[in-house]
Amino acid sequence: MSGAALPPERFEAWLRDEGARRYHATHPFHLRMHAGALTPEQLRRWVLNRYYYQTRIPVKDALILSKSEDPRFRRWWIQRLHDHDDEDGGLALWLRMAGAVGCDVEEVASCRAVLPGVRFACDAYVTLVRDATLVEAVASSLTECFAPDLMAERVAAWERHYPWVPRDALTYFRARVPRARTDGAQALTFVLREARTYDVQARCVQALVRKTEILWSLLDAVEQAGGTVPP
Amino acid sequence: MSGAALPPERFEAWLRDEGARRYHATHPFHLRMHAGALTPEQLRRWVLNRYYYQTRIPVKDALILSKSEDPRFRRWWIQRLHDHDDEDGGLALWLRMAGAVGCDVEEVASCRAVLPGVRFACDAYVTLVRDATLVEAVASSLTECFAPDLMAERVAAWERHYPWVPRDALTYFRARVPRARTDGAQALTFVLREARTYDVQARCVQALVRKTEILWSLLDAVEQAGGTVPP
Repeated sequence: MSGAALPPERFEAWLRDEGARRYHATHPFHLRMHAGALTPEQLRRWVLNRYYYQTRIPVKDALILSKSEDPRFRRWWIQRLHDHDDEDGGLALWLRMAGAVGCDVEEVASCRAVLPGVRFACDAYVTLVRDATLVEAVASSLTECFAPDLMAERVAAWERHYPWVPRDALTYFRARVPRARTDGAQALTFVLREARTYDVQARCVQALVRKTEILWSLLDAVEQAGGTVPP
Repeated sequence: MSGAALPPERFEAWLRDEGARRYHATHPFHLRMHAGALTPEQLRRWVLNRYYYQTRIPVKDALILSKSEDPRFRRWWIQRLHDHDDEDGGLALWLRMAGAVGCDVEEVASCRAVLPGVRFACDAYVTLVRDATLVEAVASSLTECFAPDLMAERVAAWERHYPWVPRDALTYFRARVPRARTDGAQALTFVLREARTYDVQARCVQALVRKTEILWSLLDAVEQAGGTVPP
């Protein structure tokens, strides 16, 4: 059992099943966010804390770059750094959104008010990627396969339930829907191709599961800090 | 003594002194290369082995990226990855040169014939960068401050002494002269600004010294493998 790799379609089904079941789309905090039940303060707390996660993305993507021996892989993956770091990239858009929802942008950018539990979870993502093989590290990014639906839902929910948020504050999420779809599909193709034994496939699933735990734990910390959430 | 940083001009002089004295421009193998004393086989051995060093450059630059918390720094440093990885970048140009001097390009690209001593030295560079702080890792790149003269000398020496090498095989070195000058100067500015205590300054000098040892050791291994070099 341990040597022979699963056929790609069974490996993909395994990844999708474990990933979809554990993805934070169904976290109670997200459910309340999308039902319009968050106060402005709760929404701002999420924006501030989640920004720390956003700042870890280029760091872990640079670590992934450093693990590859293939310039073609690196030419592909480096686009992710540009997507977040460029002057009009994801980090800048997130800070613009933070200002639009009423956060102190300088405080958000400094990350000094990030909740300890959020910090531990996000740092665990960098550690996971640092210690993983290339294919496992890429597998940990496969939560992107589930992100487009969540982000499309978020845009619709914010427009409907939080009309006080300026429409153009949502540019980051709108831009991420097609980008995450492409990135997720390409990363999945890479993992399906490069995980060539059952053991490596199992480690890829484990990396994806760990990543879903990180995302879930981040929301747990945000929710915990918010006290009782109104119905 | 241990707390107060040296003024920038004294710190710079320290870096330049230690770097210039130990830089591999004066390694016997380089002296013979530039005097026209290498056989085609010896030149090809250097090209093949030095390619392994070239492949470590984007890996260590990605590690440096991963150490920075500043998108502006990363927007600056990421250019180095493009310089080596892009389709017409440094790695591609090096392989073109390898073909032009008569190497088996596929063998060079595979790195399978790299001498053990060369491999250890180059891997030590990646380890040095991985384990260093950001400013120390950048300091280890300051050998670039001494590279332009060596590379200009190399181009002239090859054109004069190795006329069997096609002129356009030297594109990589020609392109590196201005690029290394700019990169070295900018990295120096960063190190002078960011090393804010004497201890950190001393560790930066140590990182640069270690890097010069790595470059020197690479040539030792190439020379050792070549047997007696003709006068």
